[in-house]
Amino acid sequence: MSDMGLTVKKAEDFSEWYTQVVVKSRLADYAPVKGCMIFRELSYAIWEKIQEAFNEKIKATGHKNVYFPMFIPESFLKKEAEHFKGFVPQVAWVTIGGETPLEERLAIRPTSETIMYATYAKWIRSWRDLPIKLNQWNSVVRWETEATKLFLRTREFLWQEGHTAHATKEEADQEVMEILNIYKEIIENYLAIPVIAGKKTENEKFKGALYTTTLEALMPDGKALQMGTSHQLGQNFSKAFNIKFLDKDEKERYVWQTSWGFSTRMIGAMVMIHGDDKGLVLPPKVAPIQAVIIPIPYKDANSTAILAKAKEIYEKLKKNGILAVLDDRSEYTPGWKFNEWELKGVPIRIEIGPRDLKQKQATLARRDTFERTAIKEEEIVNAVTKLLEEIQKNLFNKAKKFLEENITTVNTYEEFKKTLKEKGGFIRACWCADSACEEKIKEETGATIRIMPFEKEKTFAKCIYCGKEAKEVVYFARAY
Amino acid sequence: MSDMGLTVKKAEDFSEWYTQVVVKSRLADYAPVKGCMIFRELSYAIWEKIQEAFNEKIKATGHKNVYFPMFIPESFLKKEAEHFKGFVPQVAWVTIGGETPLEERLAIRPTSETIMYATYAKWIRSWRDLPIKLNQWNSVVRWETEATKLFLRTREFLWQEGHTAHATKEEADQEVMEILNIYKEIIENYLAIPVIAGKKTENEKFKGALYTTTLEALMPDGKALQMGTSHQLGQNFSKAFNIKFLDKDEKERYVWQTSWGFSTRMIGAMVMIHGDDKGLVLPPKVAPIQAVIIPIPYKDANSTAILAKAKEIYEKLKKNGILAVLDDRSEYTPGWKFNEWELKGVPIRIEIGPRDLKQKQATLARRDTFERTAIKEEEIVNAVTKLLEEIQKNLFNKAKKFLEENITTVNTYEEFKKTLKEKGGFIRACWCADSACEEKIKEETGATIRIMPFEKEKTFAKCIYCGKEAKEVVYFARAY
Repeated sequence: MSDMGLTVKKAEDFSEWYTQVVVKSRLADYAPVKGCMIFRELSYAIWEKIQEAFNEKIKATGHKNVYFPMFIPESFLKKEAEHFKGFVPQVAWVTIGGETPLEERLAIRPTSETIMYATYAKWIRSWRDLPIKLNQWNSVVRWETEATKLFLRTREFLWQEGHTAHATKEEADQEVMEILNIYKEIIENYLAIPVIAGKKTENEKFKGALYTTTLEALMPDGKALQMGTSHQLGQNFSKAFNIKFLDKDEKERYVWQTSWGFSTRMIGAMVMIHGDDKGLVLPPKVAPIQAVIIPIPYKDANSTAILAKAKEIYEKLKKNGILAVLDDRSEYTPGWKFNEWELKGVPIRIEIGPRDLKQKQATLARRDTFERTAIKEEEIVNAVTKLLEEIQKNLFNKAKKFLEENITTVNTYEEFKKTLKEKGGFIRACWCADSACEEKIKEETGATIRIMPFEKEKTFAKCIYCGKEAKEVVYFARAY
Repeated sequence: MSDMGLTVKKAEDFSEWYTQVVVKSRLADYAPVKGCMIFRELSYAIWEKIQEAFNEKIKATGHKNVYFPMFIPESFLKKEAEHFKGFVPQVAWVTIGGETPLEERLAIRPTSETIMYATYAKWIRSWRDLPIKLNQWNSVVRWETEATKLFLRTREFLWQEGHTAHATKEEADQEVMEILNIYKEIIENYLAIPVIAGKKTENEKFKGALYTTTLEALMPDGKALQMGTSHQLGQNFSKAFNIKFLDKDEKERYVWQTSWGFSTRMIGAMVMIHGDDKGLVLPPKVAPIQAVIIPIPYKDANSTAILAKAKEIYEKLKKNGILAVLDDRSEYTPGWKFNEWELKGVPIRIEIGPRDLKQKQATLARRDTFERTAIKEEEIVNAVTKLLEEIQKNLFNKAKKFLEENITTVNTYEEFKKTLKEKGGFIRACWCADSACEEKIKEETGATIRIMPFEKEKTFAKCIYCGKEAKEVVYFARAY
C-alpha cells in the first residue's frame, strides 16, 4: 500500500504528482537506459485504442500504413537545409555496424520526411501515381539533454507520421485540414481533451514546411501542450528530392506535400488533465478496462453466492461489449483493491456485497466524481453503458470549462506579464506579426505564440511588445 | 505493362522470380539506405492482419503488449555471456547523441532480452508479481553483410518478441509450447504454410537459452525457412540479471523465463510458397483485398448498367464482411486490370460483362487455379465466401503435399549428399547427437539440423556421419 499511495497532492506539487501517478499506476516507467521510458501494458493498451480509432479514420479517407527504415543517411537529412538545421542538434548517430565503422553515419530517424521522399521520387512518375497518402506507426529518436519527463520528454517516443504527395496546392491544403480535424476528433472525443486550433508562426512552424497547423491543449499548471501538428510542406521537399510528375497536360510538375504527426505525449496530457489525488482517471473510450467488479465477502456473508453473482454480472457486461474485469483475487482485501483500481483510473467500480446480493442490486462507483449508486441487477448493462458515456462527457466538459476560464485577453505587455505570472494559460493578445517581437517576448517571458487562429480575429489594441500597428490576434502560452 | 509483367518463370530462376514478384506487386521495395527495405502498403496490411490474429490469441491467454526502448547499453548486452557472443558481430552501435560522443555506446536492439530483464529485476519482488507475460511489436536490427533479400535478409526487420517470467520450470515449459502452438495456428491457418515442429540442437539454439523450439517450413527451391521460435531460457538470464522473487514458502528463487518471436520473414515464405508466374497468390485470410470487381464495358454494351451492377455487387459483398474492391478506373482496360490484380495476388476476381448483366450473373475467377465460374447474382455472397475458404484450403493442401513429398529418409551420408544435391528438402536421418558430426556435415554440405522431433522417433541406422550408435532421428536441410 505505501508503495501504491500518492504522497503528494496534484494542487501542491504538480510535477511530482504527475511522476508518481504515472509510475505508481504502472502506466509507464523509467527505462534503465538514460533518457528513455518503458510503455507498460496500461499505457500501451491506451495507445492501441488510439491507434485503432485513428487507423479507422485514416483508412476510411484513403490512407495506407507502411513501414520505412529507421536509418537515414546523413546526406539525405542535409538535402532540405532548414530541415537539417532544425533536427541535427538532436540526432542519434549510428557510426558502427557489426565490427566495421560506417562510411557514412546514419541518423536514427527523428522524423521520416527525407528517407520517405527519396523513395517517393522513385515511385512517382505520372499524375496516375497521385495522390500518395501513407502513414507509419513507429518510434522516433530526439536526443534530449534536459531532464526526462515520462511521455513528454524522452529520447525515444512512439508516434505516427503521415506523408502525402498531391498534384496541386489546393489538394495538399485540404489534406492538412482533413487530418487536423481527425486529430481533433480523436483528442476531444476519445481522450476528452479540448483543444484550440490554428496556425503556427514562421518561428514556430515545422522546419521545412510552408506552414504548420496545430492543436494545443492546456495543462492544469497553466502550460500549453502541443497535441498534434499537420504541415503543408509546399514544394520545399519535392524540389530538394526532385519529386516530379507528368501532369495530364503533359507538363512536368513538382508535387505538393504534407506531413503530420501525433505522439504518445498525448497520453501524458491525458494524465495531467484528468488525474486526481487518487491517481489516474481514464476516459472510458480509451480505458482498456472500463469497469472492475469487486466482490465484497464480509465474513458473515455467503461469499460463494457473492462471487457467483459477481461472475454473472461480469459475463453479462462482457457479452455486451463492455471491457470488464472481475477482481476475485483472494490475496487482497476489497479496500486494497479499491485503491489499486482507483490509482489505475478505471472509470467504474462495481461492488457486490451482502446487502447488494440480498437486494438483487450492485453498487456503481464513478471514478470521476466518486458518486455511488445502487442499480438493480437487470438494469446493470444499461446503467454501466450510460454511465460510461456520462463520465466521458463529464471529463471533457470539466476540461473545457478549465480551458475557457484560462484564456485571458490582454491589451498591454504589463498585463501580459502579470497574467503569465499569476495565472498562466492562454493569453490572447495583439501582435504586429514581426518575428523580432515574438522572439523578444519569448526571451523575456518564456512564452511563445501557440496559435494564430484560422479565422483571423479583429485586432483590439497595438502590438503588445513594440506598440506598432497590430496585424494578428494570437494566443501565447508557456509550453511543455 | 512491361514494368508490371514478370520476365522470368518461378521454375527457371527462383531467386530472380522472387525479387520481381515482391517489387513489381508493390509488396515491398529496396530502401535507399543499404541493406534495408520498405514495407509498402500491401505487405504492411498483411502484417497488420497477422498482428490482429496473433494479438487476439495472446491476449486471450493473458499476455499484454508493451514497448521497451530500442537502445541497449553495451554493458547490459554483456551480462549473459553466450547471448553477447551470439549477437555482438551483428550489432549496430550508436556512438554519438546530438553533438556529444556517448560515454557508453548503445546497441540498437538485435532482440530485447537484456533491456527487458534488467527491468524485470526491478518489477519482480514476490510470487504475486508472477507470471509476467509481455509482448512487443517493434523492429530489430542485425547488421547483415550478405546481399539483401527482401523480407528474408535485411538489416532491419519487423517482428514481435514475447518475454515471460514464471515461478517454476514447468510453467515456463508450458508457456513455450502454448506459444509455439499459437504460431503454428497462425502460420498454417492464416498463411496456409504447413510446418514441421521440434527442438533445435545445442548448436542451433538461441544463444542464452536452455532449449529452443521451432517451426520450419519448406520453400519451393528445397530450402528450409525458420518461421518462428519459442525459447525456454531457464534461469540463465534471471541469474545474470538477478531476477529473484520471494516464493509462497518465504524462500527466494530465481524466475524461469521464456522468449519467443516471429518476424516479417514469414511474408517472404508466403510469397515463395504460393506465388506463381503471374505474381503473388495471397491466402484469403491475410489478403487485404479478397475480391476485386471489374466491370467489362464492351463498346456495344450498356456500360452504365454494368457499372451500376458492379457497384451493387460491391456493396453487397462489403456489407457481408468480404474485403472487396471495385476497380472502376477508366484510364485502364479490363485486361490491364486483370494482370495487375493477378500480380497483386487477390484471391478472387469478379467480372461483370454484357453477358453477365443479361443473364443476371457474375463470373468468378480463382487466383490459385484460374478456374472461372458463372454465378447467379443472388448466390454471389455465398459463392464468394465459400470460394475464399476453398482457396485457403487448397493453398495449404498444395503446400502440405509438397512438404510431405520432400521429406526424404536416408540411411547413409552418400544418400544424404545425393538427396541434398538432387532434391533438397528435409532429410530425415540418424545422428549420434555429437555436435562435432553436426558441424562437419554443415561444413561439408551447408545443411544444418532444422529440428529434432518432439516425440523422439525410433532410430533406424547408425549416425550418418561417424557411423557410431545413433541417438536421434533428426531433420536436416539447407536453410534461408
